[in-house]
Amino acid sequence: MNDITFIQGGVTAAQGFLAAGIHCGIRKNKSKRDLALILADRPCAAAAVYTTNIVKAAPIHLTMEHLKKGQARAILANSGNANACTSDGMSAAKKCVDTVAAALGLMPEDIIVNSTGVIGQPLPVDAIVKAVPELVNSLGADSEPAAEAIMTTDILSKSIAVQCEIGGKTVTIGGIAKGSGMIHPNMATMLAFVTTDCAISLGLLQEALRDSVNCTYNRISVDGDTSTNDMTAILASGLAGNENITGKGADYDVFLTALNAVNLHLAKEIARDGEGATKLITCRVKGAALEEAAVQLAKSVISSSLVKSAMFGADANWGRVLCAMGYSGAKFEPSMVDIAFSSDAGQIEVCKKGQGIEFSEDLAKNILSQKEVIIDISLYEGNAEVCAYGCDLTYDYVKINGDYRT
Amino acid sequence: MNDITFIQGGVTAAQGFLAAGIHCGIRKNKSKRDLALILADRPCAAAAVYTTNIVKAAPIHLTMEHLKKGQARAILANSGNANACTSDGMSAAKKCVDTVAAALGLMPEDIIVNSTGVIGQPLPVDAIVKAVPELVNSLGADSEPAAEAIMTTDILSKSIAVQCEIGGKTVTIGGIAKGSGMIHPNMATMLAFVTTDCAISLGLLQEALRDSVNCTYNRISVDGDTSTNDMTAILASGLAGNENITGKGADYDVFLTALNAVNLHLAKEIARDGEGATKLITCRVKGAALEEAAVQLAKSVISSSLVKSAMFGADANWGRVLCAMGYSGAKFEPSMVDIAFSSDAGQIEVCKKGQGIEFSEDLAKNILSQKEVIIDISLYEGNAEVCAYGCDLTYDYVKINGDYRT
Repeated sequence: MNDITFIQGGVTAAQGFLAAGIHCGIRKNKSKRDLALILADRPCAAAAVYTTNIVKAAPIHLTMEHLKKGQARAILANSGNANACTSDGMSAAKKCVDTVAAALGLMPEDIIVNSTGVIGQPLPVDAIVKAVPELVNSLGADSEPAAEAIMTTDILSKSIAVQCEIGGKTVTIGGIAKGSGMIHPNMATMLAFVTTDCAISLGLLQEALRDSVNCTYNRISVDGDTSTNDMTAILASGLAGNENITGKGADYDVFLTALNAVNLHLAKEIARDGEGATKLITCRVKGAALEEAAVQLAKSVISSSLVKSAMFGADANWGRVLCAMGYSGAKFEPSMVDIAFSSDAGQIEVCKKGQGIEFSEDLAKNILSQKEVIIDISLYEGNAEVCAYGCDLTYDYVKINGDYRT
Repeated sequence: MNDITFIQGGVTAAQGFLAAGIHCGIRKNKSKRDLALILADRPCAAAAVYTTNIVKAAPIHLTMEHLKKGQARAILANSGNANACTSDGMSAAKKCVDTVAAALGLMPEDIIVNSTGVIGQPLPVDAIVKAVPELVNSLGADSEPAAEAIMTTDILSKSIAVQCEIGGKTVTIGGIAKGSGMIHPNMATMLAFVTTDCAISLGLLQEALRDSVNCTYNRISVDGDTSTNDMTAILASGLAGNENITGKGADYDVFLTALNAVNLHLAKEIARDGEGATKLITCRVKGAALEEAAVQLAKSVISSSLVKSAMFGADANWGRVLCAMGYSGAKFEPSMVDIAFSSDAGQIEVCKKGQGIEFSEDLAKNILSQKEVIIDISLYEGNAEVCAYGCDLTYDYVKINGDYRT
């Protein structure tokens, strides 16, 4: 049994990590933290995956450079400004990193850096540089200030930590993330920072992160927009004392399962807290011949503006679900498809073999009015089963994004 | 000079065509027409393009069957019900077609049929069958009742007619269309019915329609959803008296130019009248090395929920434009890109060489507050230039689609 236990905490839960989050002045609202730092007490194996957008923010390029050596000690991140598409973005990112490195007695290359917020406006470097002493002094065992400092239009901060046993030792993995808008599958991910005390080789850490991102962050969508700043990074301190994982096997499997638990939790929190969202929508595709096709179908359904609007209105418009499957690009036999909706309020079948059946509109309305709704699709073609996660499309999404910048 | 003259009228402007549109009872609101018929006075060369959604409505399948012979006499269409994903959709479509064919003295195979509206509810065949005598009696020279009868959530009916000279003869092409929701590039198109009196071979008619759809309907998006019922059909009566166009050359070019004018007008009207939309957004990409890449970029921009929301709020958030280009899948050099916004209120540059420049927020707000807004993108890589058309994302889109079905 690979037991995964959820525990309190976030990015500081694993041994060897401290974090801080303060207000440095990028945001006008002084009660909103906007600068985060995560510090490991020793060099960590470090891996990251990045946005697939060809327009990449300066800190993404800088982090790619730094992580070539596969080691890092700290993660610096700010909200309120993306440091993307400006003339001096790279020098701004370097200035911030240099200042933090000096304050911590590290090399600039030891630092992973990212920014999130408005694109195209100069990063307020002076405000950040001036705040570095306070940031470093604030480092502590509480992960929450850092989780808050990376939030943009997020309503809720996003943290998680889990423990598992590897080679007789307790290994901890914890993470924080931010999401909200510009969120779409097929990207690297939104900002998510994960730490662990597991001892694991760099190559396997990189592979585990890549695999885990594919079945977690890459299965969510808020609005179909892939950001210029997306990044997931992981630091592994090795302090758990387990025998270093250097090959695939039982230990690696436990680690990957635990890492997936962390990333899936954070990914679902990002979907649930999508801009303007009132509910988490899960699309579960069962009985697919190929997992890849199931993913395509599930993503297409949770990305459809029409499905998302219907979910907002608690309208059991299953025709839009079948329609979104039809243009997904995945092959399936429409005349075999069953569709049901479920939630804490019950389950209701609405489509059998590709055709509408009679159902209670009242029950359907009640089921779809809950905070977590599942769209269940059965294909009867094979054994593959996947879930994708999204949220409803609401007036507030339009409101938030109609005037975000000014 | 290939002069194209815009004239009054729609699908009855060309010689040989009558049309009708009545209320038959599919919709509860008796003032809303819901059944349309277009009749040619002789067999016409007929071509159509269909939705690429693999879930296709029954009438799409039936029309595909009928058009194998490349000839048709009439087009029957209803709104209020898509006749898609029901157990007896095909027999329902056949029953309607048989009744109309009998009333007109035609063979069922002479009739193109389509439906638009809610998916998954049985087509009210009896109401349609009962209304056929009235429908046939209403046939006349006015195209407007038919244009109205195919509207769903459209606010405005969509008609156009143009004339051009081919081989010394006046050739007329006219059309009607409906759009509103479930509208996205890479489809066949929404419902659009075009008639012409041009004498042209079936092969060239089919080719002209396919080419024209690619640079008109396939360059619009309302919400990224590709419908189960999309269709564009064209009937050519040959009554203009021009020498039959049987090969490519000057005559074909004039015809294609005129057909493009008709389809582009209807496509833009569909984008402008997208569900909940308050403005038409044109994205013009200039200086691309390849037309295909330019199309990908322009479509990605007008499809972005974040760009669409910003346009609704008249917020000059050009970073979202560059971001949407970045995840489009097309190759380009971000550091070369210029972006400007323009409308009747003026033009303003907001991004040069991939970076933000200072601009007047007041002027930008004023420009973006107009009913037609152009997003101008310059790549400086080549000579290809294309436009794509969309609309803003508004509270009303969510409202309309939150409770469409019930």
